[in-house]
Amino acid sequence: MEPGIKDLAAGIDTVWVLLCAALVFFMEAGFAFLEAGFIRAKNSLNIVMKVFTDTTVGMLGFWAVGFGVMYGLDMAGIFGGSGFFLGGNLEHIDLRVPLYAFWLFQAAFAVAVASIISGAVAERMKFGPYIIFTLICTALIYPVAGHWIWGSGGWLSNLGMMDFAGSAAVHAVGGWAALAAVTVLGPRREKYNKDGSINVLPAHNMHLAFLGTFILWFGWFGFNPGSSLSGLDLNIARIALTTNLAAAAGGTTGIIFTMRRYGKADPSMAANGALAGLAAITAGTAYVGPGSAVIIGAVAGMLVVLAVEFFDRIKADDPVGAIAVHGVGGTWGALAVGLFAREGGLLFGGGAHQLMVQALGVLSVSLWAFGATFVAFTLLKATLGIRVSADEEFEGMDLNEHGIAAYTGLVTNSLKGFGHASSQETEEAAIPMPNPVQAGR
Amino acid sequence: MEPGIKDLAAGIDTVWVLLCAALVFFMEAGFAFLEAGFIRAKNSLNIVMKVFTDTTVGMLGFWAVGFGVMYGLDMAGIFGGSGFFLGGNLEHIDLRVPLYAFWLFQAAFAVAVASIISGAVAERMKFGPYIIFTLICTALIYPVAGHWIWGSGGWLSNLGMMDFAGSAAVHAVGGWAALAAVTVLGPRREKYNKDGSINVLPAHNMHLAFLGTFILWFGWFGFNPGSSLSGLDLNIARIALTTNLAAAAGGTTGIIFTMRRYGKADPSMAANGALAGLAAITAGTAYVGPGSAVIIGAVAGMLVVLAVEFFDRIKADDPVGAIAVHGVGGTWGALAVGLFAREGGLLFGGGAHQLMVQALGVLSVSLWAFGATFVAFTLLKATLGIRVSADEEFEGMDLNEHGIAAYTGLVTNSLKGFGHASSQETEEAAIPMPNPVQAGR
Amino acid sequence: MEPGIKDLAAGIDTVWVLLCAALVFFMEAGFAFLEAGFIRAKNSLNIVMKVFTDTTVGMLGFWAVGFGVMYGLDMAGIFGGSGFFLGGNLEHIDLRVPLYAFWLFQAAFAVAVASIISGAVAERMKFGPYIIFTLICTALIYPVAGHWIWGSGGWLSNLGMMDFAGSAAVHAVGGWAALAAVTVLGPRREKYNKDGSINVLPAHNMHLAFLGTFILWFGWFGFNPGSSLSGLDLNIARIALTTNLAAAAGGTTGIIFTMRRYGKADPSMAANGALAGLAAITAGTAYVGPGSAVIIGAVAGMLVVLAVEFFDRIKADDPVGAIAVHGVGGTWGALAVGLFAREGGLLFGGGAHQLMVQALGVLSVSLWAFGATFVAFTLLKATLGIRVSADEEFEGMDLNEHGIAAYTGLVTNSLKGFGHASSQETEEAAIPMPNPVQAGR
Repeated sequence: MEPGIKDLAAGIDTVWVLLCAALVFFMEAGFAFLEAGFIRAKNSLNIVMKVFTDTTVGMLGFWAVGFGVMYGLDMAGIFGGSGFFLGGNLEHIDLRVPLYAFWLFQAAFAVAVASIISGAVAERMKFGPYIIFTLICTALIYPVAGHWIWGSGGWLSNLGMMDFAGSAAVHAVGGWAALAAVTVLGPRREKYNKDGSINVLPAHNMHLAFLGTFILWFGWFGFNPGSSLSGLDLNIARIALTTNLAAAAGGTTGIIFTMRRYGKADPSMAANGALAGLAAITAGTAYVGPGSAVIIGAVAGMLVVLAVEFFDRIKADDPVGAIAVHGVGGTWGALAVGLFAREGGLLFGGGAHQLMVQALGVLSVSLWAFGATFVAFTLLKATLGIRVSADEEFEGMDLNEHGIAAYTGLVTNSLKGFGHASSQETEEAAIPMPNPVQAGR
Repeated sequence: MEPGIKDLAAGIDTVWVLLCAALVFFMEAGFAFLEAGFIRAKNSLNIVMKVFTDTTVGMLGFWAVGFGVMYGLDMAGIFGGSGFFLGGNLEHIDLRVPLYAFWLFQAAFAVAVASIISGAVAERMKFGPYIIFTLICTALIYPVAGHWIWGSGGWLSNLGMMDFAGSAAVHAVGGWAALAAVTVLGPRREKYNKDGSINVLPAHNMHLAFLGTFILWFGWFGFNPGSSLSGLDLNIARIALTTNLAAAAGGTTGIIFTMRRYGKADPSMAANGALAGLAAITAGTAYVGPGSAVIIGAVAGMLVVLAVEFFDRIKADDPVGAIAVHGVGGTWGALAVGLFAREGGLLFGGGAHQLMVQALGVLSVSLWAFGATFVAFTLLKATLGIRVSADEEFEGMDLNEHGIAAYTGLVTNSLKGFGHASSQETEEAAIPMPNPVQAGR
Repeated sequence: MEPGIKDLAAGIDTVWVLLCAALVFFMEAGFAFLEAGFIRAKNSLNIVMKVFTDTTVGMLGFWAVGFGVMYGLDMAGIFGGSGFFLGGNLEHIDLRVPLYAFWLFQAAFAVAVASIISGAVAERMKFGPYIIFTLICTALIYPVAGHWIWGSGGWLSNLGMMDFAGSAAVHAVGGWAALAAVTVLGPRREKYNKDGSINVLPAHNMHLAFLGTFILWFGWFGFNPGSSLSGLDLNIARIALTTNLAAAAGGTTGIIFTMRRYGKADPSMAANGALAGLAAITAGTAYVGPGSAVIIGAVAGMLVVLAVEFFDRIKADDPVGAIAVHGVGGTWGALAVGLFAREGGLLFGGGAHQLMVQALGVLSVSLWAFGATFVAFTLLKATLGIRVSADEEFEGMDLNEHGIAAYTGLVTNSLKGFGHASSQETEEAAIPMPNPVQAGR
C-alpha cells in the first residue's frame, strides 16, 4: 500500500529525530573523554564511570520520573504530573513524530546535563553518592527547569522565553548546578595553597580531551538542529550553520586570545572556547543570522578564558572548566537571544522586552539549579558523605573506587624488534588471584 | 521534474538505510578499541589489525560469496545460491531501497560477526590463519545462519522465528563461534595455573575499552532501527527506545551487581553489562514494550557477570568476554522474544509456541556456528597452525606479527617546560634503517 | 497545514545534506588522530591543534571569502566573485536544499583540504604561520580549484570533467599542495642522514592512528554520497557501495602487499591503503560499478606503498603519508574515471576523450595547488619564518608552541591495589604556579 503525504511527513520527521538523538547520545562519549583527558590519570577511569552512570542510571531515572516532570500535564506552570514510565496521559504532546522518538531525543538531553556536572566534581567525589545525585538530576532538577522553558504550560514558555535547544535549560542549568556542587564538595586538596597560590594539576591526556571536544561538536549537529523535531522545518539549515559558525568563532578566539594573553596558543582554551561558543549559540541558533552567530561564539570564547580564571580566584575548583563553559557560556547564550534575534532582538529593533524575558528566564533556572543542587549535595554530605578520604584522594579514585587503573603496563619495550637496546619496562606479570575481580581477561 | 509519492518514499527509505549502515560500519571501530583496551598492550595493535581485516577482507568475502549465500535464491531452506559478486538473479528481493543500499547494510552486519570472534582469540592467534577464517565467517558461517532466519525461504523464517536485528543471527552466532574457536585454540599460556587458580591479565587501557563501548552503543542506533529497512515504518521509534532502555538497564545492572558482589563497581562489567543488554534486546526490539526492554537488559547484565566467571571456570579463555556478551546475551535475547513479545510472548498471553520456535532457532544457529567454526579452526590448526609459539606469545603479537608496537616513546619528559626535574625518559632516538618498514614517517 | 510534495522533497534533501555534513565534519577528528598517532608524542598535541585550527579558523575563512571564490558568480571560468560572508548574489545556485545547508556541506570539505596538508608539515612548522596558511588554503587555494571543477561556469566543469566528490578537487589538491609545502619547509632534521640512509621515526600511538582511520572511513559515508546533494537521487546507494568496496580493497591490498613485500602485515600501510582507496574512488564513485571500485581501490592500495617509498627517496619528508594517500591516490582516482566510468570510460567503450579531460583536469588543479602553495610558503618563509629552531624541533612542538605536553603523568603505579610491588612512578606533583597557563584544572 502506497504511503500518503502524512506518512511521508511523519517518516521524514522520525528519521530526522532518531538520527539526531543518536548524535546527542554520542555526546556522552564526548563528555567522558573531554573530562578524563583534562584530569589526572589516577582519577580518569572514575570520571568515565561517572559519565557512564549518567548514561545508564540517568536514562532510567528520566524514564521513570524525569520525562513526566518535564513534559507531563502542567501543574501550575511549575512541573508536569503525568507520563511516568512513559505511561499515563500525554495527549497534550502534539507532534508528528511518535512519542517514543520524542522521548529518546529528550532523554539524551537529560543525561547530558548530568554529565556537565560530573566534570566539575571530578577527582574527589564518592561514586555511590554520585549515582544518587545523577538520579536526582535527571528525575527532578533538569526536568523542572525544562518544564518551565519547554513544557506545554510552563511559566517561562508562557512568558515567551526563547531557548531553542537549551543554553539556559541545559547549559546554564548544568553549569550553575556544578557550581553548587563544588561549593558543597570543596576543592581538591592539592589545588589551592594556604598562601593563596594556585597549583596547576596538568591534564594527563590532551588527545582524549580533544577527542571529547570533537565528539561533542559532532553531536551538536544533532543537539541544535534536532530540536526542531521536524525534518520539514527548513530552518534546520540555518540552525546547523549558526551552530558551526559559533563553534568556529569560539575556538578561534580561544586560540588567538591565549596567544596574546599567555604567549602561546593554549590547547585547553582552544577546546573550551569552541565548546563555550556551542553552549552559547544553543539558545539563539534558530533565530539569529550568521554574523551574529560569529559574534556570540567569539564573545563566549573570551568569556570562558576569563571565567576559568575567576572561578579559580574564588576557589570554586572545577577540574574541567564546566562551570565556565556551560554556566557562563549558557547564560551569555540565553541573554544573546535578547540582543541578536532577528525578530525581537534589541540590536534588530525589537526593543528590550525579549532581553528582559531572557534575563528573567536564565536567572530563574540558574537559581533553581544552584539551589536544588546545593540542597541535594548538602543532604548527601550529611547522610552518606560525598568526599573520599585524604588518603584515597591522594592515591587516586580509580584504584579506590573501582579496583583498577585506567592504564596498566602501558610502557613496554617497544623497539625490541629492531635490535634496539631495551628501555625501561613495566610489563606487568600475571598475578594469581583467587577471586578474580576482572574475570574474563 | 517533480518527484512523485513513490520517489519520496524510496528517498526516505534509502537515506535511512544508508545512514544506519554508516552507524553499523562505525561499530567496527567500537569492536577494535573495546578489544584493544581490554587486553595487554603488547598484543593490542594486533587485535586492531584483526578487526581491520574483518572490515576489509571480510567485506570483500561478503561481496564475493556471503551475500549470495545469505540472500540468494533459496535452496531447500538452507542457503542461497545466487547474487555472488552482486550479480545473478536477485529479483526475489523486494524492497523499496536499491539493492546496493540493502547490501551495504547487510555487509556491515557480516563484518560485525567476524569482529565478535576476533576478541575471543586475541593474544595468541596467528594473523594469516585469522584472515582466512574471517573469509570463511563472512562468506559462509554467518550467511548460512542469516539465510535460515532472514532469507526468503529460510527454514527458520518459514517457522516464524522472530529475530528482528540478530540476537541469534549475529550475536549468538558470533558468540558460540567464538567458543568453538577458543576451544580449538586453547587458552593463553599465562591465564590458568596448574593448581587451578586463574590469573588476572589486566586491561591495558580502559579508556580505549570505554571508547569502544560508547561507539558500539552509538552504532546500535543504526543496527536495530535500521533493520526496519524503511524510514516510513514508524516502529523505528519504539525500536530505538527499547534498544536504549535495555542498554541502560544492562549497564546499571553491571554497576550495581558488581558493587554488591565485589565491593566495587567494576568498569569492565559496567561496559559488558550494557553491551549484553544491547545484544539481548536485538531480537525483540521491535516487538516488546519499554518495561520488558528494561527487564531484558537487566537480566542480560546479570547473566554476563555470571557467564564470564563460568567460562573462566571451564577454561574457555576469552580475553574480552565476547562469548558472555554475545553468546549468552544473544541467546537470552532470542529466547526473551518468546516471553515478552506483545504478540506471541508467553507473558502476554501468547502461549509457549513462539518461545519454542525461538529456542529451536537459536539452538540451531548456535550449533551451526559452533560446529562450522570448530571444523574450520581444526582444519586451519592441522594445516597452517593457528597459534604463535610460546616465545612469540610472551614477547607479544604486535612486534612479532607486525614489527611495530602500539605505543612508542610514549613516556616523555613532560614538564620540562615548567623547570621541573626530569622524570624518566624513553624518547626513542632515530634508528638508521636500510630497509624502512615504516617509510613515510 | 499539510506539507506538499515540494516540501517533502526539500525536507528529505535537507535532512540528508545536513547529516552528511555532520559526517564530513567529523572527519576532522579523523585527520587529527591519524596524524597525531603517526608522529612522535612530543609533537602530537601540536598537530591536533593544527587540525583544530583548520576546523575553526579555516571555517571562518571559507565563510568570509572561500565560498564566494568557489561558488560565486563565475568570472572567466576561473573563480567566483560573489557570496562573501554568505551575502551578495547567489541566485545562480539552484538547489532544492537551503543555501545554508549547501554551504555547511561545502565548508566541511574545505577544512578537510587544509587538514590534508597539516599532516605533511607536522613536527617542524611554526603554529602562527600555519594559521595564516590555513586561511589562504580555505579562502583561495582550494576554492579556485573547486570553482574550476564544480562551480557553475568553471572551465573544467564546462569541459565535462567528472569528479563527483573530489579525488582531484579535494585530494589531489591537498596532496600536491602538501608536496609544495614540504619542499619549501624541508625535512625533519632527524629524518635523512648525510650518508643517504633514512631513519624510521616510529609512530607513537597506532591506536590513535587507527581511530583516525576508522573515523575518516565513517565520515566518507557522508563525503561521497552526500555530494549528490539530494536524498532522492537513488544513485546514493551505488555511491555508498563503491566507496566502501574501494576502501575494503585498498585496505586488503595494504595488508597483503606488505605481507609479501616486508614479511609482515604493516599496520600503517593497511590504514593508508584503505584511505588511498577512498581518495581514489571519490571521483568515480557515482559512475563506476562494484567490480571497478574494487580494482580502483586495490590499485590505490598498491600505489600508496610505492609512493611512500618514492617520496622518501626524493627526501620529500611527509610524516603521515598524506602526499601518497591524497596526492597519488586522488590523481589515480581522477584518471580512473576516464577508464572505468560506465558512460565514457575507456574500458567501457567510451573512447579516450573522458580520460583526456580527466588528465587535463587533475593536472591543472594539481599544478595550481602546488604552485599556489609553493608561493604562499615561500612568502611566509621570507617574512615570518616557517620552521621552528633546531632546539625547538628536538625538544618538541608541544612544549614549545603550547606550553603543555600531550601526556602528563601517564605511567602510574597501577597495581598497587593488588598488593603488587610498586613499579616506577612518575606521578606529577602539583606545581605552584603564579600565572597558571592552565587555570581550571
